[in-house]
Amino acid sequence: MAGEFELIEQHFKWPVPQGVLGVGDDCALLAVKDGHRLAVTTDLLVEDCHFFADVDPESLGHKALAVNVSDLAAMGARPLGCVLGMSLPAADHDWLKKFSRGFRSLADAVGCPLIGGDTTRSPKHIAISVTAMGEVRPDAALTRSAAAVGDDIWVTGTLGGPHLALLLLQGQHAQHIDLLEGLRPLLERPMPPVAFGAALAGIAHAAIDISDGLLQDLGHILKASGCAAEIVYPRLPVHPDVSSLHASIVQPAVLNGGDVYQLCFTAPQASRTQITDLAASHGVQATRIGRICSGAGLRVTDAVIPLGASDYHGFNHFG
Amino acid sequence: MAGEFELIEQHFKWPVPQGVLGVGDDCALLAVKDGHRLAVTTDLLVEDCHFFADVDPESLGHKALAVNVSDLAAMGARPLGCVLGMSLPAADHDWLKKFSRGFRSLADAVGCPLIGGDTTRSPKHIAISVTAMGEVRPDAALTRSAAAVGDDIWVTGTLGGPHLALLLLQGQHAQHIDLLEGLRPLLERPMPPVAFGAALAGIAHAAIDISDGLLQDLGHILKASGCAAEIVYPRLPVHPDVSSLHASIVQPAVLNGGDVYQLCFTAPQASRTQITDLAASHGVQATRIGRICSGAGLRVTDAVIPLGASDYHGFNHFG
Repeated sequence: MAGEFELIEQHFKWPVPQGVLGVGDDCALLAVKDGHRLAVTTDLLVEDCHFFADVDPESLGHKALAVNVSDLAAMGARPLGCVLGMSLPAADHDWLKKFSRGFRSLADAVGCPLIGGDTTRSPKHIAISVTAMGEVRPDAALTRSAAAVGDDIWVTGTLGGPHLALLLLQGQHAQHIDLLEGLRPLLERPMPPVAFGAALAGIAHAAIDISDGLLQDLGHILKASGCAAEIVYPRLPVHPDVSSLHASIVQPAVLNGGDVYQLCFTAPQASRTQITDLAASHGVQATRIGRICSGAGLRVTDAVIPLGASDYHGFNHFG
Repeated sequence: MAGEFELIEQHFKWPVPQGVLGVGDDCALLAVKDGHRLAVTTDLLVEDCHFFADVDPESLGHKALAVNVSDLAAMGARPLGCVLGMSLPAADHDWLKKFSRGFRSLADAVGCPLIGGDTTRSPKHIAISVTAMGEVRPDAALTRSAAAVGDDIWVTGTLGGPHLALLLLQGQHAQHIDLLEGLRPLLERPMPPVAFGAALAGIAHAAIDISDGLLQDLGHILKASGCAAEIVYPRLPVHPDVSSLHASIVQPAVLNGGDVYQLCFTAPQASRTQITDLAASHGVQATRIGRICSGAGLRVTDAVIPLGASDYHGFNHFG
């Protein structure tokens, strides 16, 4: 069976009008205004695939929106609003109240108001679709294809936390179960750097949100930009609760762990001070982890990982 | 259990920024451009609720987009593009090829290109979300609340066909099964009058697409506009294959039958010639069926049906 990405390309990558960026980036871009683009992103979350029936509804409401505003941030787009589709087996008011509280609290925090929706009854499973829209200047959008040789590579926030939380919830590494309470919010209520992402528009070059793991997501930038990268492993901002664990736990969590919803972006070396100042003013941790080079492949210091090697593959829904 | 509409209002009707029209119309409107509004609509279709697993995938692809561009037409918005979320139990390439052919053929016909999407694996059911975006001048949008006393009430296309097709597929009225072949496309591949809807912006007042049945959908306009309506039953454009059947079949199909995806709109009497000419130039059948009056309630000639009476309720997902 083909992977998710090939599926989309095979069946749904059609020609789009001039001024429009179609399937294959964090957001699609639509020309709606001279000097502006509408950034649009959509996610469909399904019970037993993306979450389980007993999930905390407030966290689910938060995360359903978080994964979408994270895509806006990765495009450098300022949120304008979102629409929500819900299919539920029953109209459980307590559940809906909690879900809407989690959704709204993040919508308010990042300035992405809910403006429309569709609610229907489903026979068995909960399904949730969110489409978020934002605004970005066409020449400033942080597309995946905009990385340039010599760019620094940056990540926001920390790495490894959400993945370890997931493993602990699955019963793995039980000797570290005391870490779960602190790490669980990273998995269930990620806080993408939305305002910082919009502020990077026009400063940074390429960006992506880390949803499938740093190596796989950075790999998408390299493939789209036609270049290589070198990452300095000791520079990676490992979450403090994770860093003291055994390397056999830390390394895959940091390099391949998904559900991070922080940004990986590239920017000219001349912008270092500007980016550091911007991050400080937004209360965002931004760390330089490597650089973009010519050629192909992704090198992590003390290990060469060629593009396409299975090691750096993250989560592939149809894999 | 509360109905679908109350659910949405209770949990998700939050304040929205100035210049934005939120939950409660065919589309939400976003201020993205001076003198323009972005119209956004979303639908979530779930297997065993909106369709069955053995549905013709090409028809499903068509209909998934049709229900959304129908909402754009009902807002008077010109389509800009759409995004698609799909959750599938397996990556069935033959199925996807047919689905995408149906989707694309309508997207091309109405000028609403697919610009982005999200494909994931679902454990059991197919779920499909479509969000369509369009553009409309803010003073020209065909909101539900814009009907004025004295307005004519119009409908496009014909009534009753899709509902009879559904009944025949369910095994009812088996003596008329020979009508199924002709009527089935109306149910499975509705063709909303998208260009005509956009052309009505600035001419018509209120509009809605007939998805849940003429009486229920017109009822939404009356409620939002605070007025009453009188419909002349013999003027209703009954589908020719339906009109000769017994009144006990025809009347509910015409007044309450859903899945029509044609427009019901109101417009000043002074615009009659302009609307007739516009309909002719778009190849659309437009029929005057009544008028907007002061007060409350919906009167059908030879029968008085007060607003709120169960007779005029259409399909309510949580009812």
